[in-house]
Amino acid sequence: MGRFETPALADLPDDVRERIETETEEAGFTPNVFSAFAYKPSHFRAFFEYHDAIIDDAAIERAEIEMLIVTVSGINDCLYCVVAHGALLRIYSGRPKLADQLATNHRSADLTERRRAMLDFAELLTESPGDVDDAAVAALREAGFSDEQVWDIATVVAYYNLSNRLATVADMRPNEEFYTLGRGE
Amino acid sequence: MGRFETPALADLPDDVRERIETETEEAGFTPNVFSAFAYKPSHFRAFFEYHDAIIDDAAIERAEIEMLIVTVSGINDCLYCVVAHGALLRIYSGRPKLADQLATNHRSADLTERRRAMLDFAELLTESPGDVDDAAVAALREAGFSDEQVWDIATVVAYYNLSNRLATVADMRPNEEFYTLGRGE
Amino acid sequence: MGRFETPALADLPDDVRERIETETEEAGFTPNVFSAFAYKPSHFRAFFEYHDAIIDDAAIERAEIEMLIVTVSGINDCLYCVVAHGALLRIYSGRPKLADQLATNHRSADLTERRRAMLDFAELLTESPGDVDDAAVAALREAGFSDEQVWDIATVVAYYNLSNRLATVADMRPNEEFYTLGRGE
Amino acid sequence: MGRFETPALADLPDDVRERIETETEEAGFTPNVFSAFAYKPSHFRAFFEYHDAIIDDAAIERAEIEMLIVTVSGINDCLYCVVAHGALLRIYSGRPKLADQLATNHRSADLTERRRAMLDFAELLTESPGDVDDAAVAALREAGFSDEQVWDIATVVAYYNLSNRLATVADMRPNEEFYTLGRGE
Amino acid sequence: MGRFETPALADLPDDVRERIETETEEAGFTPNVFSAFAYKPSHFRAFFEYHDAIIDDAAIERAEIEMLIVTVSGINDCLYCVVAHGALLRIYSGRPKLADQLATNHRSADLTERRRAMLDFAELLTESPGDVDDAAVAALREAGFSDEQVWDIATVVAYYNLSNRLATVADMRPNEEFYTLGRGE
Amino acid sequence: MGRFETPALADLPDDVRERIETETEEAGFTPNVFSAFAYKPSHFRAFFEYHDAIIDDAAIERAEIEMLIVTVSGINDCLYCVVAHGALLRIYSGRPKLADQLATNHRSADLTERRRAMLDFAELLTESPGDVDDAAVAALREAGFSDEQVWDIATVVAYYNLSNRLATVADMRPNEEFYTLGRGE
Repeated sequence: MGRFETPALADLPDDVRERIETETEEAGFTPNVFSAFAYKPSHFRAFFEYHDAIIDDAAIERAEIEMLIVTVSGINDCLYCVVAHGALLRIYSGRPKLADQLATNHRSADLTERRRAMLDFAELLTESPGDVDDAAVAALREAGFSDEQVWDIATVVAYYNLSNRLATVADMRPNEEFYTLGRGE
Repeated sequence: MGRFETPALADLPDDVRERIETETEEAGFTPNVFSAFAYKPSHFRAFFEYHDAIIDDAAIERAEIEMLIVTVSGINDCLYCVVAHGALLRIYSGRPKLADQLATNHRSADLTERRRAMLDFAELLTESPGDVDDAAVAALREAGFSDEQVWDIATVVAYYNLSNRLATVADMRPNEEFYTLGRGE
Repeated sequence: MGRFETPALADLPDDVRERIETETEEAGFTPNVFSAFAYKPSHFRAFFEYHDAIIDDAAIERAEIEMLIVTVSGINDCLYCVVAHGALLRIYSGRPKLADQLATNHRSADLTERRRAMLDFAELLTESPGDVDDAAVAALREAGFSDEQVWDIATVVAYYNLSNRLATVADMRPNEEFYTLGRGE
Repeated sequence: MGRFETPALADLPDDVRERIETETEEAGFTPNVFSAFAYKPSHFRAFFEYHDAIIDDAAIERAEIEMLIVTVSGINDCLYCVVAHGALLRIYSGRPKLADQLATNHRSADLTERRRAMLDFAELLTESPGDVDDAAVAALREAGFSDEQVWDIATVVAYYNLSNRLATVADMRPNEEFYTLGRGE
Repeated sequence: MGRFETPALADLPDDVRERIETETEEAGFTPNVFSAFAYKPSHFRAFFEYHDAIIDDAAIERAEIEMLIVTVSGINDCLYCVVAHGALLRIYSGRPKLADQLATNHRSADLTERRRAMLDFAELLTESPGDVDDAAVAALREAGFSDEQVWDIATVVAYYNLSNRLATVADMRPNEEFYTLGRGE
Repeated sequence: MGRFETPALADLPDDVRERIETETEEAGFTPNVFSAFAYKPSHFRAFFEYHDAIIDDAAIERAEIEMLIVTVSGINDCLYCVVAHGALLRIYSGRPKLADQLATNHRSADLTERRRAMLDFAELLTESPGDVDDAAVAALREAGFSDEQVWDIATVVAYYNLSNRLATVADMRPNEEFYTLGRGE
């Protein structure tokens, strides 16, 4: 799958193989992002370590993280991220339609003013990073976000601007499971 | 400095403080990116671990890595990255004018066809990630890059699309030293 | 629903009410586009008459029409059209993942060269109508499309550039059913 | 004329031929849009039926409709629509310079605040349909437009986003007469 | 007229007043660009001296100069330049429809390949000056332009990128005469 | 150097040669813009006459002129102008870091509100000249600029939109001296 050939599971370094096995057990299938990054184990480790730090030490809610990811990935036209994190967003938010709404246009989702401000900022930081200035950051704070929350929002947006680009260059494709996960009531 | 208040060096976790001390010793000053990321130690660790993996396990030359960084950061209007990595590019390439050329317009630099192709790809992946397709990747391969080199080029571009956004949101400013480092003969 | 208040079914002109009743019977629910356009019956008639002409007298396949619609609506960020026609595309193509792929990025879908050319043209005509010239039309013909097929492709793209704009201004929201229709095997 | 070959008048279905004859009589020449659409009679009927509904059942003035069309067509670089509707705008508004002003830049025309708001909205809905939100619609209402007028403005903009694209793909050229009609005092 | 108040003719320095009188005599009216620039005589002199040098020492035809101006001014949405130079283009080319075509979309004008290449280059240099590279200049040369002609084309495009911006900031409006000049047979 | 062959100094008209000799004496080297424009003496004269008028009869400070030039040239990706005027800006402002800041992103420079407004206007007039309207000009006046200062700001921006385009087409390269001039304390 994709543009880079990944070694067989058995040929991977132990820590990489073990992470893949754990993920597979948890999800019931191996999300393709793990197979794709196994192409280069040193990058595999760094990529997922950063990912884990963002998730594990977050001042914003997990559902908000996934809202940011789906919005950013929609803007960057990244199929893997829209579909895989669309599934996660449905699961963490309990709102089965929210992912399709944010991937298409966050203006067409029913959002609190706070979250609308968060996603407006995500859009600006993704599309025109050089235009972010004091006023843009102040708008987040006025919407009620603390300093650390602003940092975390920026980090999620920035990290998925990385992920989207790598997923597209590697031509990662979402596992079939992601397309339907969390769509039921 | 910047939009987030960083704790005093003494109040940081040991590993973070030690990394900062090492960097300070090597550079003769503390590059501001280290002070800025100390705002959130868990992210500090992940950010620099990824950075180190990119540098330490690279199939492209260090000067090429810095060429990519300066080109991408110029497109994203990121002052910290243009100036700090401009200094590194001058040092690693031994070409004191190259950084200003790439930060402004890589079409106005004297480049081999191979490196022109590399920077054309960096521009496309930065500005229009969704437009990267087989033809864009094939152009890199035709310019002589191996699979792993394509992966590394994509990773550097992607990682600095992350860094540029965080540096801008945090309003990181380049240390004075970076403006002039490597400009002499 | 939406930004314009629609009269009750009973207060609508007979032909409009009958069309809505037929659609409701066929679909098992009333697609919201019908309720929304009932706001202005003269426009309701014209809008659906054009729609019917496009569907009933088409030189391209129904699945291709829906591929065009989903691609165009994704570019124009139109939630109603992406979700409602995503459902139709899943049904008419028998490919449950195709809609999410095209809505996000047609470059990440597995397409014949002929259909890739069709969707490249749709993207150009949507984003930069003034840039369409002899070369752009010739590319479609080289991909194997007849004159009438070129006309029909252009018409579908043009008509959904109309629909997307009206759906967004009216803030039409997709019926819940559309989100999941056709996703099963 | 154009990229699609149109049958001779005599070979057209009666209703299509009659419409063309009526238009020819009224205008003193056959506007090329009628000849061009005769390529596909089913679409001819639908296209002009929608057009007629917009004109015949409008809550905004005819001159305003033509102002919208010329502004939208200028943004979409559509020669046929700029020149043909430029003539109509001169006639309906009695202002011989207004069409050239709007086709180039509505900011350089002398407009009431109400009409400036109308054309600002037309520009936004044409260039960035996904950015239209409550605030954009509210601006129209604050400028004094009723609900139905908002709908009609949106419809004219949307319909000419369709027309512009078809005219460009078909390479329709304005009749010579349109270039000068209504320019005298 | 416009955003800057211009002194009365009698209060202007002799050379400026004389130039205005000469132009008025030749045209039969005072083109507003002369009155507007009289705001600042030192700039008046420099602006028209450059203009005269471009016209008097040109390696391309006068009609080609006006074709470039109208195309560039259309892209930059400059009303004064589109209308005033539209009149000049009609006069110098003897083609009464050409100005409206180029102001709207040079792809919809009947042009030799040579002139199509010239206007494609003008569009690129106006919209994305940083993207001009060896390939863009080579395309002009392959279309048959000499070195000096390339220089002159670039100069006309560059000079009207200046003029368009000043005319817009000063809110210069075209004299009524320009709207109709040269439209007759 | 560059894309146009320049005659030897001895073969130039006296006034052109003398200007070049004066500039060489003053700078200690011949700035390449003089050699490049010598390609066409009539344009050489006009270009520098306009330049001199802007500098000699300015209602804004010289450092402000150079701030505008560096900002505009950064947006237009013009290497010659960024580097040569970067040197002048360092000299005239006495702030050795300001040029790199403005060339990258004026939002990352420490500026008074007045100058931030000036550079925001420069950005708008460079990127979207057709969007300049009463509100944009009023913002300059509210920031404290007089009418003549607004004119001068507009003129500097417009003139460097000309210069940037010519420098890029001619492939002018900055003299080595400019890269380091004014960087010391």
